[in-house]
Amino acid sequence: MIFPALARRGGTSNFMANKQNIVTIGGGSGQYVLLSALCDLRHISITAIVSMVDSGGSTGRLRDELGVLPPGDILKCVLALSPDRESVRKLLQTRFKSKNRLNGHSAGNLLLTFLSQYAGSFPEGVEALAEILNIKGKVLPVTIDKATLVAELTDGSHLYGETAIDLPRGNQREKIKKAFLVPHHSDAIKIYPPVIKAIKRADFLVIGPGDLYTSIIPNLLVPGVKEALGKTKAKLVYVVNLMTKFGETDNFKVSDFVRVIEKAIGKKLDFIIVNNKKPAISIINKYKKEKASLVKCDLVNSKIIKADLMAIEGNIIRHNAEKLTEIINNL
Amino acid sequence: MIFPALARRGGTSNFMANKQNIVTIGGGSGQYVLLSALCDLRHISITAIVSMVDSGGSTGRLRDELGVLPPGDILKCVLALSPDRESVRKLLQTRFKSKNRLNGHSAGNLLLTFLSQYAGSFPEGVEALAEILNIKGKVLPVTIDKATLVAELTDGSHLYGETAIDLPRGNQREKIKKAFLVPHHSDAIKIYPPVIKAIKRADFLVIGPGDLYTSIIPNLLVPGVKEALGKTKAKLVYVVNLMTKFGETDNFKVSDFVRVIEKAIGKKLDFIIVNNKKPAISIINKYKKEKASLVKCDLVNSKIIKADLMAIEGNIIRHNAEKLTEIINNL
Repeated sequence: MIFPALARRGGTSNFMANKQNIVTIGGGSGQYVLLSALCDLRHISITAIVSMVDSGGSTGRLRDELGVLPPGDILKCVLALSPDRESVRKLLQTRFKSKNRLNGHSAGNLLLTFLSQYAGSFPEGVEALAEILNIKGKVLPVTIDKATLVAELTDGSHLYGETAIDLPRGNQREKIKKAFLVPHHSDAIKIYPPVIKAIKRADFLVIGPGDLYTSIIPNLLVPGVKEALGKTKAKLVYVVNLMTKFGETDNFKVSDFVRVIEKAIGKKLDFIIVNNKKPAISIINKYKKEKASLVKCDLVNSKIIKADLMAIEGNIIRHNAEKLTEIINNL
Repeated sequence: MIFPALARRGGTSNFMANKQNIVTIGGGSGQYVLLSALCDLRHISITAIVSMVDSGGSTGRLRDELGVLPPGDILKCVLALSPDRESVRKLLQTRFKSKNRLNGHSAGNLLLTFLSQYAGSFPEGVEALAEILNIKGKVLPVTIDKATLVAELTDGSHLYGETAIDLPRGNQREKIKKAFLVPHHSDAIKIYPPVIKAIKRADFLVIGPGDLYTSIIPNLLVPGVKEALGKTKAKLVYVVNLMTKFGETDNFKVSDFVRVIEKAIGKKLDFIIVNNKKPAISIINKYKKEKASLVKCDLVNSKIIKADLMAIEGNIIRHNAEKLTEIINNL
């Protein structure tokens, strides 16, 4: 616990006077970590906007077999906002070890998929899951139109699907020049209308942490998101990644991340949260094997907020969600 | 806690020397209550055999809409045998309050239905649910053939479906003369083979508590069950209901319950567990409004085990599961 329980549990706090609307934009485990800590703050209202391009593992199989929207990232966010986070996570995220088709799926992915199919729409399925998990806040898919994420590389070639971009094959890969969404149906992809409302009402909009091209950017590519961000008065906060990612952000410094994000949102960020802690050399070396390195800060300006943001579990580096939440709380 | 923790948690116990196989036969909340207490006994192996004719509420709707086997009673048993019983029950048995089709369903019924559909069979769905709930013991549907329970009344008329039998309309109803199963498909209804094995291996076979014609008898009507019971060396234990039930067991005394059960199983019971406690007159009067009365014991023989078995919660009378378990443990 970094800051006094008082601030987190309804005592004096920056959020005391008016209930602040915090909107997060992301996907994947980065957003899970952030939301599970934000969730403990009182006097805030949380809305999580989640990208809809995940195509890996259990989620990818369900998409392929049933033609549904990807449940995995939404599930993570709903679990993060549940007061019984640990116990429901155990139940809904454990993977089946079966000899049948269930093998590798989680009960949560299957439940969310079936709730959506049975209720008739994905948002109704998400709402139902949120209802039984008694969540604090809202979880919104950025779009309910099905799409494939495509990355165009510097050599002009294309990668199709989030998994192909996320898990590069081989030892070398061209840089990503740009990413775009290809709709599965002839209708164009549209922003899910409640997302417009949430962005409009936001006091703070927290982008990240998460993989740049596979978790964050796919939200910003949805037509209507940039426009909504253009109109909001919310302070735009970006949480820069701790480590680069092979095939996505090789050799990226803070300025590279910021450049890509500001281009995607079409305006300047208000706050840029950057880690300044170096992990032990043994951990650096472990990441080196995966062609990942520490993100260096090459920007100096008043928007940059530097802090030790690392939480190291075993050899895995993650954002320390409580520290991150403390910083956001003090903005 | 009625008997010492020592006996329940692995200390000295009648079940100490050899792991005893206990098989329960029933359905509905009676079996839930029994299993959740039995589950705490060490040195026993539990198998719950569950009737497959429930046609009410959420389960009935899923049967009608999707043509599936009834999930509700199986779900109850799986939850009863989970070490996280209370928290998973909250999550999986809470009913949705939605404006859509989900309204009135529980997440558990939907999850079990989808697991079964996706895996390709009902038993695989049950096994998957058992896996993520990490249950102690096994839960087996008595059959995996779909059927409707039919009651023939003394005037020759018929009632179709468990709900029609369970919830009588009007103030008068003829007595049930006999009950039988009508298969949904032209193939005859068959016992689910693992049930034969479980009955054969059982040391104790506990029938009930539960509604006689709508929870207990539907198990015994499945072709093959009577034969399996005929061959088993297991001690047959019957837990007689506390109260009669309008339309099913009006004015039934212990001898009536025993007669119906012994006819259905085709052999004599070894132990008959009977309540000897009278509840307060206010509770008796409350049940009188529902045309239910206390079951009187009109049998005297060495098989009868009498005890105060009542657990009264509010105005609801249920079996005291711990006392029942203590008696079973001491057989």
